[in-house]
Amino acid sequence: MSEKYLEDFAPGQMYRSGRNRVETDRVKAFASEFDPQPFHLDEDAAGRSIFGGLAASGWHTAALTMRLLVESDFKPAGGIVGAGFEELRWPLPVRPGDELYVEAEVLEVRPSKSRPSQGLIKVRTTTRNQKGEAVQISVGNLVVRRRADPRKG
Amino acid sequence: MSEKYLEDFAPGQMYRSGRNRVETDRVKAFASEFDPQPFHLDEDAAGRSIFGGLAASGWHTAALTMRLLVESDFKPAGGIVGAGFEELRWPLPVRPGDELYVEAEVLEVRPSKSRPSQGLIKVRTTTRNQKGEAVQISVGNLVVRRRADPRKG
Repeated sequence: MSEKYLEDFAPGQMYRSGRNRVETDRVKAFASEFDPQPFHLDEDAAGRSIFGGLAASGWHTAALTMRLLVESDFKPAGGIVGAGFEELRWPLPVRPGDELYVEAEVLEVRPSKSRPSQGLIKVRTTTRNQKGEAVQISVGNLVVRRRADPRKG
Repeated sequence: MSEKYLEDFAPGQMYRSGRNRVETDRVKAFASEFDPQPFHLDEDAAGRSIFGGLAASGWHTAALTMRLLVESDFKPAGGIVGAGFEELRWPLPVRPGDELYVEAEVLEVRPSKSRPSQGLIKVRTTTRNQKGEAVQISVGNLVVRRRADPRKG
């Protein structure tokens, strides 16, 4: 559970989070504040929509994914700081009652050329429901501290 | 403000949202629930972090962007339904007190080959603060209904 520096990461490393159950009232509360569309708020309207039933906002799934990741053993030094994503998609809707967990895989590790005190790691996160189905896939780059400034080496 | 079908969209169309002020208590409340890291929760810890002061979670910015978009004149028939993003980044931190607005530009319009009742539009959204600086940029594809099934036409 200790903090990990850039030197501690390597491609192929996998992390797995705990689980979080998605409750109906939280789906509706998130949607009311951030994504007030009928298919996230009302069962009847959702049944007539493209989702065929109440579905969590994709941004709710993204936020829950972040929570699961922050609470996992994936602990970059300086925190989980996203520089940006090159992929973010939701292959299946998240339904009330689903239990989500996150798998994070390190794809690349790169020292920064301009900032010797840090680097970037590319990470794929896959958020899965209780059946193991992927409900969110992202590929993003995180800023991670180096253990020591190599110029001082 | 009427709903727009695939046939109503064309590359180059621009939409601009209203404004939303980011309050300190909301930054901390969102972070407490979804992104509990010190630089989103505590001014002193944030001052010592990579952000140099309290900053909203990127997922909070993303969620606020969605809210602004849902309330704007950008009204695809069937709702704003994201198929996925190919870019999502946060060039600058969002600070408490910032007032955000969103610009959405239609980049591409494509009928679906497999589903004649719908298509995809590619949209770039740029979320800006009160100085006009970009704090979030995304490029994503949205599912949009066609006005009529062309097979029936």
